[in-house]
Amino acid sequence: MSGGLDLRLVAREARPEGTVITVGGVAIGGPDVVMMAGPCAVENERQLLEVARAVKAAGASVLRGGAFKPRTSPYSFQGLKEEGLELLVLARAETGLPVVTEVMDARHLEAVLACTDILQVGSRNMQNYTLLEEVGRCRVPVLLKRGMGATIEEYLHAAEYVLKGGNDQVILCERGIRTFEPSTRNTLDLNAVPMLKRRTHLPVIVDPSHGTGHAWMVAPMGCAAVAAGADGLLVEVHADPANALSDGAHALTREAFARMTVQVAAVAIAVGRTASRMGSGTFSQPRLISAVT
Amino acid sequence: MSGGLDLRLVAREARPEGTVITVGGVAIGGPDVVMMAGPCAVENERQLLEVARAVKAAGASVLRGGAFKPRTSPYSFQGLKEEGLELLVLARAETGLPVVTEVMDARHLEAVLACTDILQVGSRNMQNYTLLEEVGRCRVPVLLKRGMGATIEEYLHAAEYVLKGGNDQVILCERGIRTFEPSTRNTLDLNAVPMLKRRTHLPVIVDPSHGTGHAWMVAPMGCAAVAAGADGLLVEVHADPANALSDGAHALTREAFARMTVQVAAVAIAVGRTASRMGSGTFSQPRLISAVT
Amino acid sequence: MSGGLDLRLVAREARPEGTVITVGGVAIGGPDVVMMAGPCAVENERQLLEVARAVKAAGASVLRGGAFKPRTSPYSFQGLKEEGLELLVLARAETGLPVVTEVMDARHLEAVLACTDILQVGSRNMQNYTLLEEVGRCRVPVLLKRGMGATIEEYLHAAEYVLKGGNDQVILCERGIRTFEPSTRNTLDLNAVPMLKRRTHLPVIVDPSHGTGHAWMVAPMGCAAVAAGADGLLVEVHADPANALSDGAHALTREAFARMTVQVAAVAIAVGRTASRMGSGTFSQPRLISAVT
Amino acid sequence: MSGGLDLRLVAREARPEGTVITVGGVAIGGPDVVMMAGPCAVENERQLLEVARAVKAAGASVLRGGAFKPRTSPYSFQGLKEEGLELLVLARAETGLPVVTEVMDARHLEAVLACTDILQVGSRNMQNYTLLEEVGRCRVPVLLKRGMGATIEEYLHAAEYVLKGGNDQVILCERGIRTFEPSTRNTLDLNAVPMLKRRTHLPVIVDPSHGTGHAWMVAPMGCAAVAAGADGLLVEVHADPANALSDGAHALTREAFARMTVQVAAVAIAVGRTASRMGSGTFSQPRLISAVT
Repeated sequence: MSGGLDLRLVAREARPEGTVITVGGVAIGGPDVVMMAGPCAVENERQLLEVARAVKAAGASVLRGGAFKPRTSPYSFQGLKEEGLELLVLARAETGLPVVTEVMDARHLEAVLACTDILQVGSRNMQNYTLLEEVGRCRVPVLLKRGMGATIEEYLHAAEYVLKGGNDQVILCERGIRTFEPSTRNTLDLNAVPMLKRRTHLPVIVDPSHGTGHAWMVAPMGCAAVAAGADGLLVEVHADPANALSDGAHALTREAFARMTVQVAAVAIAVGRTASRMGSGTFSQPRLISAVT
Repeated sequence: MSGGLDLRLVAREARPEGTVITVGGVAIGGPDVVMMAGPCAVENERQLLEVARAVKAAGASVLRGGAFKPRTSPYSFQGLKEEGLELLVLARAETGLPVVTEVMDARHLEAVLACTDILQVGSRNMQNYTLLEEVGRCRVPVLLKRGMGATIEEYLHAAEYVLKGGNDQVILCERGIRTFEPSTRNTLDLNAVPMLKRRTHLPVIVDPSHGTGHAWMVAPMGCAAVAAGADGLLVEVHADPANALSDGAHALTREAFARMTVQVAAVAIAVGRTASRMGSGTFSQPRLISAVT
Repeated sequence: MSGGLDLRLVAREARPEGTVITVGGVAIGGPDVVMMAGPCAVENERQLLEVARAVKAAGASVLRGGAFKPRTSPYSFQGLKEEGLELLVLARAETGLPVVTEVMDARHLEAVLACTDILQVGSRNMQNYTLLEEVGRCRVPVLLKRGMGATIEEYLHAAEYVLKGGNDQVILCERGIRTFEPSTRNTLDLNAVPMLKRRTHLPVIVDPSHGTGHAWMVAPMGCAAVAAGADGLLVEVHADPANALSDGAHALTREAFARMTVQVAAVAIAVGRTASRMGSGTFSQPRLISAVT
Repeated sequence: MSGGLDLRLVAREARPEGTVITVGGVAIGGPDVVMMAGPCAVENERQLLEVARAVKAAGASVLRGGAFKPRTSPYSFQGLKEEGLELLVLARAETGLPVVTEVMDARHLEAVLACTDILQVGSRNMQNYTLLEEVGRCRVPVLLKRGMGATIEEYLHAAEYVLKGGNDQVILCERGIRTFEPSTRNTLDLNAVPMLKRRTHLPVIVDPSHGTGHAWMVAPMGCAAVAAGADGLLVEVHADPANALSDGAHALTREAFARMTVQVAAVAIAVGRTASRMGSGTFSQPRLISAVT
């Protein structure tokens, strides 16, 4: 099971008790299951604050939001960039939630570092090794997403790049892989959760939004991820998904997100975890997850 | 979302309330999550009865066991065939559990029908259309496994073959698909669970044994499947996995299976289901699912 | 590189000089590259004879045509069955071409054997082991297509089933595998050609029709297959593709097929093979393969 | 077939006659099939010059060599970097061959531009959009490799990023995709060649070295690529593959490369192309491609 010398820093054997990453009072990788949520892209102040307040109320511990957006087409909305970063600072001040946002380029690192609590390295950059080396030199936690065509072995090696640089605060995130199945945007590889938990001491979270591509699948697959052993979830929420500037097809409404946290909390408790902030909102009882409605 | 005329019988719209299949007093597709368990292959009387009694005690409702075994190599053990069927009859008499076993060929159908309560059509035969037509003429439930290279659309069409023959008692089973990821035997596609529940009225179960290929992954991935909305699980159990004649790498011991049912029951309840027979064995409390041990 | 005892009969080491299969005066697996062509499905006498005469004139050595058709939907045209077999006998008498047609079920074997020179086992039945055992007992050549989700290792094991039964006249056929790429029906895995030629002594042909799903790709990919070392091609041709009862999207017209044989012959000669019957038709000069028109 | 507005610059419709890119007197995308060859990594002066002279003698028109090497493990040899660039300049002076080398990071662009004739963007950076934007601002040709998990649609969009920046000198390169097949390092998707030639006006080459992972497969798959319509090949050559610092398993010896160019030239001519520089070396006759030796 060991990865040999090539995985000397990330291997479970290097820290059998597991790594717990604490950011803004939130412990990631401990007994508590952590919810990170927010819009795919930061669009404007009102949009961001509406979502930020709602996800906090429903139990999210970390606010996500994209300022620099990698997009398949050069003609798609590429994010608000520096302006988006400033809005994230505002939302953090307003809600108290620590922020995670993506850095796409080493040259943006200084600007992003000034505004975020967790640096995200996206799927498309999982093997952008010079970027991994740069975030390895930082002293803030890194959320490293699995590449959509990357094996678990390659993924662990990418994390090793960051740890080798001196930064051992890496959170892994399964977000779906490329397969022949066309009915979902990606195939969420939940096998990766127990496999990663066994291979490495790093925390492992799951993104059921990109991993499915369908809003109605996010709650059941988020529950499944926690049942498989995930330390947290990363979920996209939008006040008006139909008019989102990116990825509206899988964004949850604020109401759907609030319902989801209740379900996820119940599953977390069932598998011996806690979910201390979740489910404290509008809904007080676990309910049947219905995929049919 | 509709499959059009080609899926006129299996589509959710054809029976919005869902299909519940009752066999030997067990309702599959209702609120209760059902556990089917047993050895990969029937090897001998003692081996089968040991496992059958243990899985019953731990809460299984259906006994699985292969008499006709499709094997990649022609030199591998191919199952006890007719003798295996007789042992399944014996185990059913002894435990009272209904039996599911695979039929590989229309010419064996009469013999298999005489000894089983549910006919299994395996992954490799998912598109063996003449076999699907034959089981469509039977009046016993059919457990149809997804082909490892089959899309959900093709899978639903395979089920349509059976219903078109007049047999609407079909149970679907996700068991892992082929992807580029080599660390697991297959990639368990849990996205398929909510997708199938939405697309069709048929019950959906999951096989985490073949879907992972590692015994230590079966419990967390079985819990994940139930959290995703599965109506049941199909799990391989062996009294001595190291000496199993087939697929020992993913077979659970009887003790591990008993622990697993407690965990699965807790997750079932957390998502608003029941698990009336599970967890009634040795262990009385839900425990932490540890993927690291 | 050896497959060990499990591949004792198909391994290259078992017959280093290679297997040449002779059927109706055509040698498959020798220096001559062989073209097998005809309609996807036999539809009626006129349709079959039109195509049969045209493919013979253009250099095909074997006539293909489906009488029993495995179709994804139970509501699609399933072939003319016995009537289709009779038409193949007629076309063979008319053209002198040996015939290859698919057998889907052991119970049809006697009827198919009476009318064909080569038995085809289709992709969906590559792991239908009881069918492989049955064709292993026959003494006619078997064209065994690779399953769309099958590894090369599994494919060789499927061939081993046939040889173990006593029939060493097996022709392998790469026809495209399932991948994440959606722009083609399948991904034609031409790597499989040199890999199979190295691993086994059996002849290897390629089906660029199913392997691409687009008629305009069949000629360049057929040329590529021969350049990679294929011993022959299997190509679908229809006098009126737009009105074909199955798979019209990748069927070549008779004219396009005649042009293709000239191109394939030129490539065969370039790689040190012969193509003794091809290119003898309407067109006398190799021409530029243009993928753009 | 059109890609719509999102592919307005790369679409075939935008330049139906095709793009020909001329570098150092070599026309890429015209009737002549072009060979680019050299070592995976530049290791030292002697190693580079030995290979450079040999590939020139055998008919290569462009010298490849990696100075900045993206490697899966942070502990693997990462290339000689600036020193490697200087050696490429030396090899160019010595042989007269234009050079292609990879740029991994926008911050290295100035240094790389000073030493290369063609900028390579590697598979792992195909969706590194800020890097694509930077090379789009350059006025040198870009060799953009397909990502191993990228669809053709995404690949064309990545090229669109470069053209949108004002640089229309983009060469596409198929180099194998991720599939379930484990016997080859990647699955070389030759379907992509006619598909890309139809969809875009840009030249398309193929890398059979990374696309197979086995030196003995490079010649037959290179021939197949040209038969499919490729405008050139990118091949790794090493004087002593067993001691190469990276990717020795698929590197050709100088002798094997010389034999390969003769074979490729014969196939090029067979499909109506020219191969004006190839095959002018030691070997004077096309020979049988034997995959079995």
